[in-house]
Order: sequence, then C-alpha cells, then structure tokens
Amino acid sequence: MKIVTLGPAGTFSQQAALRYNDKAEIIFEKTIKDAALKVNDNLAEVGILPIENSVAGTVGETLDSLMSLDLFITSEIIVPIKHNLAKKKDQAITEVKKIYAHPQAYAQCEEYLLKKYKDAEIIETSSNAKSAEIISENGADAIAIVPEIASEIYNLDIIAKNVQDNRFNVTRFIVVSENNGTKPTGHDRTSIAIYPQLDKPGLLYDIIGEFARRKINLTKIESRPAKGKLGDYFFFLDFEGHISDDRVGEAIESVEKSAFVKLFGSYERQY
Amino acid sequence: MKIVTLGPAGTFSQQAALRYNDKAEIIFEKTIKDAALKVNDNLAEVGILPIENSVAGTVGETLDSLMSLDLFITSEIIVPIKHNLAKKKDQAITEVKKIYAHPQAYAQCEEYLLKKYKDAEIIETSSNAKSAEIISENGADAIAIVPEIASEIYNLDIIAKNVQDNRFNVTRFIVVSENNGTKPTGHDRTSIAIYPQLDKPGLLYDIIGEFARRKINLTKIESRPAKGKLGDYFFFLDFEGHISDDRVGEAIESVEKSAFVKLFGSYERQY
Repeated sequence: MKIVTLGPAGTFSQQAALRYNDKAEIIFEKTIKDAALKVNDNLAEVGILPIENSVAGTVGETLDSLMSLDLFITSEIIVPIKHNLAKKKDQAITEVKKIYAHPQAYAQCEEYLLKKYKDAEIIETSSNAKSAEIISENGADAIAIVPEIASEIYNLDIIAKNVQDNRFNVTRFIVVSENNGTKPTGHDRTSIAIYPQLDKPGLLYDIIGEFARRKINLTKIESRPAKGKLGDYFFFLDFEGHISDDRVGEAIESVEKSAFVKLFGSYERQY
Repeated sequence: MKIVTLGPAGTFSQQAALRYNDKAEIIFEKTIKDAALKVNDNLAEVGILPIENSVAGTVGETLDSLMSLDLFITSEIIVPIKHNLAKKKDQAITEVKKIYAHPQAYAQCEEYLLKKYKDAEIIETSSNAKSAEIISENGADAIAIVPEIASEIYNLDIIAKNVQDNRFNVTRFIVVSENNGTKPTGHDRTSIAIYPQLDKPGLLYDIIGEFARRKINLTKIESRPAKGKLGDYFFFLDFEGHISDDRVGEAIESVEKSAFVKLFGSYERQY
C-alpha cells in the first residue's frame, strides 16, 4: 500500500502516516495540494493530510484540496504535537549558542526557551525535519526543536521532552481516498462544504437550523473565502452522524434547496 | 508613533504597516504573540496582525492573542498578496538552478514555477525576507519568490511580477490597540468571540438566530478549539454593524444569556 503525505520525512505528517499504517510505503510531497493530487491521479491509495491544529487552527490548503478535487474522507487520526529539544548524537555541548526551529515550533515553545536559553540565537528553518538535519551535521554548540520521529531519522539525542508551552496541542489529520462508502460505526462524523446560492442575512441561520431541529450536533463550522472575493464564503461543517442515517440524509436534502452541498464523507470519530 | 508587527522586515506584514502609516517607526517581532504583547505592555501604540488570508485561511495565533489579551480592533487593512520573482541586482543569470522560497509562497506559485523552471531546485526558507536576503548575497544561478517590499530592502531586480497561480490572494490584517471606542461610520464591522456555557445541539443555532432575526449579516464564523480539548469550541463571529447600533447591542445582550461574549471592537469595513 502506498500512502502520500506532506514531506519531508521526519515531521508530524509522517507520524500520522505511521499511526495509520506502519507497513505502507510513504511518499512525501512538497505541498498539501501535490499530495492530494497524487491520490486523485491514483498514484497512491490514500493521502494523509493535516486539517486542524488545536493551536494554529484550520489548514486552509487541505480544505481547498477537498473543494477542488473529488476525494473522500475515510478516517481521522489525532496526533499529539510534542516538541522535543535534541542535540547531535554523543555531542558534548558546553554552551547552547544556537537553536534551530521552524517558526511555528518556536512560537509553541517560546516561553520555555526564553526561560532556559535566553542568550541563545534562534535560527528559523523551513521545517522541523530541516532543523534536525542541520544539527545532525553541525551540532557543536547548537540544539533543535524536533518531533520524536525526526530525532530517530537523524539519529539525535533528545535532551528535553515535551517543551511546548501549551500542554494541549494536537493535530487532526484526515485520510483521503478516491473511494467513498465507509460503513456506519455508531460513532461517526460527517464533513461537508456548503456554498449558499443566495447572499442574504439569515441564510446560514436557516441552514444550521436544518441540523439543529433534527438534533444533529455540529462539531465544527468554518467560513472560508470562496475564490471570487473576500466576504464571499463557503462554509465547512462537521457534524455527528453518518450519511446513511435518515436524519442526516434529510438535513442535507433540505439544505440543498438553497445551497450547493459537497459531501466529503462519513467516518469514525476519534473524539 | 510606534507600530509593532510580525518580522522580519520585507514581508507582507511590513507592507500592511506602511499602508496604515508610512511615517511611523515599525518594530518587528518574531511571533504574532510577541507583537500583541508589545501593544498590551504599552511598548507600541498599535499592532498590525494578519488575521485571514484568502488562500491559507484564518491565522490562529492572532485569534488566540485576541482571546488571551485585552486588545481592541480599531481598523482592518486589506493587502493584496503579490508574489514576484527576483534576482540579485545587475546579476546575469544564464540558467536558473535554484529557487529560494518560503513553503507557502512556493505553494501559491507552484504551477507557474513548474511550467517555467521545471529543472530548478526549490530551496525552502523560513520567510519571504530570508529568500531575498539569500539571493542578495549569493545569486549567481538563483532567484527567489519575494514581495515587492523585500526586493526594495534587499535591492533586487524583479524579473517577473504577480506569479501567483491564483489571481485572488489577499490578506486581511487587523490594527489592534489598548483603546476601544471607534465612532460609527455607517459601514462598520464588529468582531466578537463566543464561548457557549452549555454543550447542547442547537445552541449555536440559537445564538446565530439572535443576529438573523435582527437582520444583522454575519460576514465570518469560525469555530476554534478551546484550550481544553478538541471538540470544545469558541466561535469567532464578524458581522456588519457597530456596537453602538441598537440592534447590535440587543443581539449581544441576548447571546450573553447563554454564552460568554468577548467584544474585540467595531471598525470601518474595507469590503
């Protein structure tokens, strides 16, 4: 089985892919769109894409790929984001002068770093894997913020675990494929996008009402600029239930009277 | 006047700051949170923070800073995101072997680059300004994707303008300060966060209903994980109107019966 995800190797995307299937071949792509296209073009059975981080928010590129291609969500994977400090294997460091970090990783560990290493220079990198690669080659007075998997790939020593400032930091990944049709498990989530055909105050209210009056619990709602202009929005909705449930089917049928609906799929909820 | 924004110099944040006030002193911070804290601590009169990009989506760190500090939004600034290809000043390049790019800039120009420079190596950097800095020092066979302001600061030659694949690419920035109280202009937007005190299906529907029945047009809605767990959400709402309008005040008063409401301010709409 081939899985495609966001590269390079050594990031949380790879951790998500291994959690999904640790025997599969993993293909790494430079962008989320490229990973999605690989699935669309049948060059990989499934794609694993980050859709939402509890600190950084929703990943717009993933939503756009779902909108522009015909892929279906078949599962979700929750990966705890744990940042570690690592040094080059067996390297003795008398003073940490440089810390290599992806800007987002730095932002999530800033309080810790300012307390422990206030005189070190922070050098920003383009990915967590890149930070690991740099100190694996040149780590005499430098450390890096890395995910566990990067420390394994680049053979680093972890010197401090879980240094993120916010203890609650998880990323939700979705598994996408060309095939729809997961069976209901009794504990499912359905994801759809809605594009209202009218622009009137209250239309979103009416749409949400179709779910509320059928006691369908919305678990996420997000407006996202349609490609025409700011203020022209799609809405992405996640809600509890499976598309084969009568009340879910009825709600979507009612919404379709005033909006374009794109179904991304129903899949087992992980929380 | 001192303005604080996200650094380094040479990014779209600086362009937004100059658009707001081209005479002010601009302070650059490494993270959005640090920029917001500078305003909170009275070390700058205003902060200019990206809140939403039409392609990449909402900027979670900005929403979190609004939630955790007591800052008010006093205006919004719309900056068109135009990517350019640039080379070192007066450098003759016979073959482009390397292209330096921030991963997000690369993702937004990928189709163009694959068509025009399919054999070039893409080297990812931590910011658009960094891409400019690198080729300004070592640009014999390399070009970079840069905003116009970075090409000015690093004295580069622009060789192609507007190379982004999607013509519609804008970022909305907000201007935050410690002072609330903008006067109504008749064309305003109000931003609030809502944290429901109950977790029941339909509560969001009831909340939105308070706006819909008063003909208040919601322009943005976004759920965002509260720091407790995935599935426990704040809702960020933007809507048309000023907090001093009777119907806006009444809607918020009604919502407060079942939810915690945090007001970020009313300000003139730019679209």
